[in-house]
Amino acid sequence: MTLSDLLLQARSYRRFQQGPLQEEALSELLQLTRLCPSSANRQPLKYLLAWRPDQNDRIFPHLRWAASLTDWAGPSEGERPTGYVVILGDTRISRQFDLDCGIAAHAIQLGAAEQGLGACMIGSADRAALSSALQLPEHLEIQLVVALGKPGETVVLEEGAPDECPYWRDEQGVHHVPKRSLVEVRVELSKS
Amino acid sequence: MTLSDLLLQARSYRRFQQGPLQEEALSELLQLTRLCPSSANRQPLKYLLAWRPDQNDRIFPHLRWAASLTDWAGPSEGERPTGYVVILGDTRISRQFDLDCGIAAHAIQLGAAEQGLGACMIGSADRAALSSALQLPEHLEIQLVVALGKPGETVVLEEGAPDECPYWRDEQGVHHVPKRSLVEVRVELSKS
Repeated sequence: MTLSDLLLQARSYRRFQQGPLQEEALSELLQLTRLCPSSANRQPLKYLLAWRPDQNDRIFPHLRWAASLTDWAGPSEGERPTGYVVILGDTRISRQFDLDCGIAAHAIQLGAAEQGLGACMIGSADRAALSSALQLPEHLEIQLVVALGKPGETVVLEEGAPDECPYWRDEQGVHHVPKRSLVEVRVELSKS
Repeated sequence: MTLSDLLLQARSYRRFQQGPLQEEALSELLQLTRLCPSSANRQPLKYLLAWRPDQNDRIFPHLRWAASLTDWAGPSEGERPTGYVVILGDTRISRQFDLDCGIAAHAIQLGAAEQGLGACMIGSADRAALSSALQLPEHLEIQLVVALGKPGETVVLEEGAPDECPYWRDEQGVHHVPKRSLVEVRVELSKS
């Protein structure tokens, strides 16, 4: 599969088919993050894996879903993620995590797509409650939660600007995601 | 190529073979960024491409290289990058760029590897001077510069912690990069 095909397949999924994830599948995703670049190679990120129902139940209640789908409170029972990678920043190593976190989360999402899984990076959560539910030590700060599972919805890209509406779900439940055109994102270098 | 192989190949290169890059090759890398996830799908990043010598010369003098190689001031003539993607944050759209920037820069680095090119994400630059050299409007803030070209050095991964020494170059000029072990980066979930 080309990188372009893999990127296309790695959409953000918010509804999932049920069925167990294997710990090994998640562990393989972590191996991918170890191959990624890191700012000044400090590697300040740590990862907590969840795949058993009792583990997943400690995470799900604290996540917030798709702010722009105002009439949808998040996945209901029977369509919830079946696993998670919680990305943590180790403040003993660094205080700057976002660039590394984007890189690592994307490697996880691409690795999931390669395995036939879907992922969604979730930045909006009750961090204090989640941290408490996971009994995290103080030096590990929650950066991002990557929800995982077998995709249970169809997501399609559209060409267009997201400024009016960043994404929408149609009557058939298909999730549409507008992406800016190449012309819109490219800045021409002025003549010197 | 599997994702794991592509990630392994996509090392950070700081010395390059000389020879022209095509605009089309860089434009293909931009197409990849359009397929990436973006926080709340706002897509606030813009991209400036450089591939001609006169363009590259406006960028190179303002970059800072490999702080941990204290006896190396950066690539000398004959080993400099032959192209760049300058990643810009459009402050008219958002003020938060780092997560998106990590994702996009990594897609560029992976796409470069797929093309047989090498890349290095450079976060350390004289931003004011570079912004002025590129005559950027005020609403476009430099986030990261991705240097590109045909790899002109060997980079190998080592298992180990980077805390004492984040990377080093040996007598043969091979660049070594320690990566933390899986055991070190994985946090076990405590029993509830």
